[in-house]
Amino acid sequence: MEGGAILEGLARRDPAALARAISLVENRREGFEQVLARALVPRAAGATAGRRTGLTGPPGAGKSTLTERLIRHYRAHGESVGVIAVDPTSAFTGGALLGDRIRMESSEVDSGVFIRSMATRGSHGGLAVTTEEVAQLLEAFGFAQVLIETVGVGQTELDIAGAADTTVVVLVPESGDAIQTLKAGVMEIADIYVLNKSDRPGADKLRHEIEIMVSMRRGSRAGAWEPPVIKTVATTGEGIGELTGALEGHRAYLETSGMLVARRKRRVEALTRAVLTRALERWVWEAARADEIIAERLDDVLEGRQSPYELAQAVIEQVKSGALE
Amino acid sequence: MEGGAILEGLARRDPAALARAISLVENRREGFEQVLARALVPRAAGATAGRRTGLTGPPGAGKSTLTERLIRHYRAHGESVGVIAVDPTSAFTGGALLGDRIRMESSEVDSGVFIRSMATRGSHGGLAVTTEEVAQLLEAFGFAQVLIETVGVGQTELDIAGAADTTVVVLVPESGDAIQTLKAGVMEIADIYVLNKSDRPGADKLRHEIEIMVSMRRGSRAGAWEPPVIKTVATTGEGIGELTGALEGHRAYLETSGMLVARRKRRVEALTRAVLTRALERWVWEAARADEIIAERLDDVLEGRQSPYELAQAVIEQVKSGALE
Repeated sequence: MEGGAILEGLARRDPAALARAISLVENRREGFEQVLARALVPRAAGATAGRRTGLTGPPGAGKSTLTERLIRHYRAHGESVGVIAVDPTSAFTGGALLGDRIRMESSEVDSGVFIRSMATRGSHGGLAVTTEEVAQLLEAFGFAQVLIETVGVGQTELDIAGAADTTVVVLVPESGDAIQTLKAGVMEIADIYVLNKSDRPGADKLRHEIEIMVSMRRGSRAGAWEPPVIKTVATTGEGIGELTGALEGHRAYLETSGMLVARRKRRVEALTRAVLTRALERWVWEAARADEIIAERLDDVLEGRQSPYELAQAVIEQVKSGALE
Repeated sequence: MEGGAILEGLARRDPAALARAISLVENRREGFEQVLARALVPRAAGATAGRRTGLTGPPGAGKSTLTERLIRHYRAHGESVGVIAVDPTSAFTGGALLGDRIRMESSEVDSGVFIRSMATRGSHGGLAVTTEEVAQLLEAFGFAQVLIETVGVGQTELDIAGAADTTVVVLVPESGDAIQTLKAGVMEIADIYVLNKSDRPGADKLRHEIEIMVSMRRGSRAGAWEPPVIKTVATTGEGIGELTGALEGHRAYLETSGMLVARRKRRVEALTRAVLTRALERWVWEAARADEIIAERLDDVLEGRQSPYELAQAVIEQVKSGALE
């Protein structure tokens, strides 16, 4: 199925076309930007119709089960749900988290639910951009709720979380390292904390610790949203109502404070910047024959006759002198 | 202190000059590439004199204490040690992991030890490159051992680990999520597993699970290194001798198998590629006045009159038509 057929399929809301569009975007295959350009416009890129919720946290915190609970909740309220699950699985361990996923896949018979896993392997800095693009595709397709689930709490995950309007950080009592995790940049992105598996020992202690950190932080920003700490047991559904209530509450806060528009605007600006960088880089890299040059001169670098910095400078001089077409 | 003074300081092995060189590189300040080019050449970029060990694992696993133990071990054997500690701390939580660090800082009175923390905030995809550059600086300065400590097990951390010859993955018994962590791409980079805090319950069970995963993997690659699982209690020093023995063993394996040279070669190629990309990108971004163009046209993108992809294409056409200088 090539670009034209995908666009046609998207227009008649064919889930198979959506799946193919995502593959095209994820793998950056020839023509993906044209498909995106046509699939996403005339819908304004800054539109705020869809609701995007990010769920992030350490492996084993129960994010998939929580996601499944949210899907059921929204479906019960007649809302369609698109899910992006960003898996750090690799070629070797491919499908490692599939076990977690399987229970969720059962939701797929419902046409109001679309679940898509994306691999992080090899995508490095580009993953945040791809996630934003896929989220836009899901919104353009018409999903009222878009859930973005990421495993881990590293820089990559924080970047991905940036694609959501509301970010839920999921922790568990036995994360003895939870407070360190919070310090590691997560506090800045958490709009809501979920303390899952809260029937286990240590839940109240951890909740208390998080609340102290939240209140310390609030001190420095008057009038700001105060992230609630919600105890859940995703396997039984306990606390899910409180979570969806908090999601509603944060959405209302974003809307009335004007932050929803501001967040979306910042996101579109970042995407535009990334798309332009990517396009420039691809063009210059090809036009400068950079691969050939590196292959030719790598021995000089390895043996210390030239540094990578001198090599780069030489290529740029060559480009400037008009060798590009 | 500008470039010339830094180079002069490096030549007479002044630690203050090294600290300033690292700051220059870390912040990508004007002239950092010239300093690197001159500080690292004529020393061959592919040289394999220094020994680089990476330590990675979840927060709270005791990596800093292990690092401190390794420093003591190498110092007792007369080897100098340079440490790069990559902290995911942010502006807000700046210095959050300092508590961990403080015990280590006491080593700094010894001129054979140099410890440097690097922030990950905002550096995104560039962090692996910066880590490689700083590691080269430490080697060029003359440190026999270079330790690279990263907090977390996300894609960023895996990328950073690529700067080491030998990667140690540190886990603790209470990581109930340890096996999921292993599946999440870590198995491919682990040369040695350390099960720290192994006096706690669950250590033998986890060790057994890791060994099963290692042996399953080995099946697919005959003759490959089989990562050992070493139990340590870093706070008491238990198991450190076994760890340093395993580090020696892995080094010998890398040397006899030819993999040491292959790994370093791949690393130099990646660095060269990244340096060239960065230089091309910076030049084109400036020459194309990309910031101005985005500022001018962002409203069109936000309101859906133009997609980021069309905007990028228009800029490239403009560049191609000779507007660059």
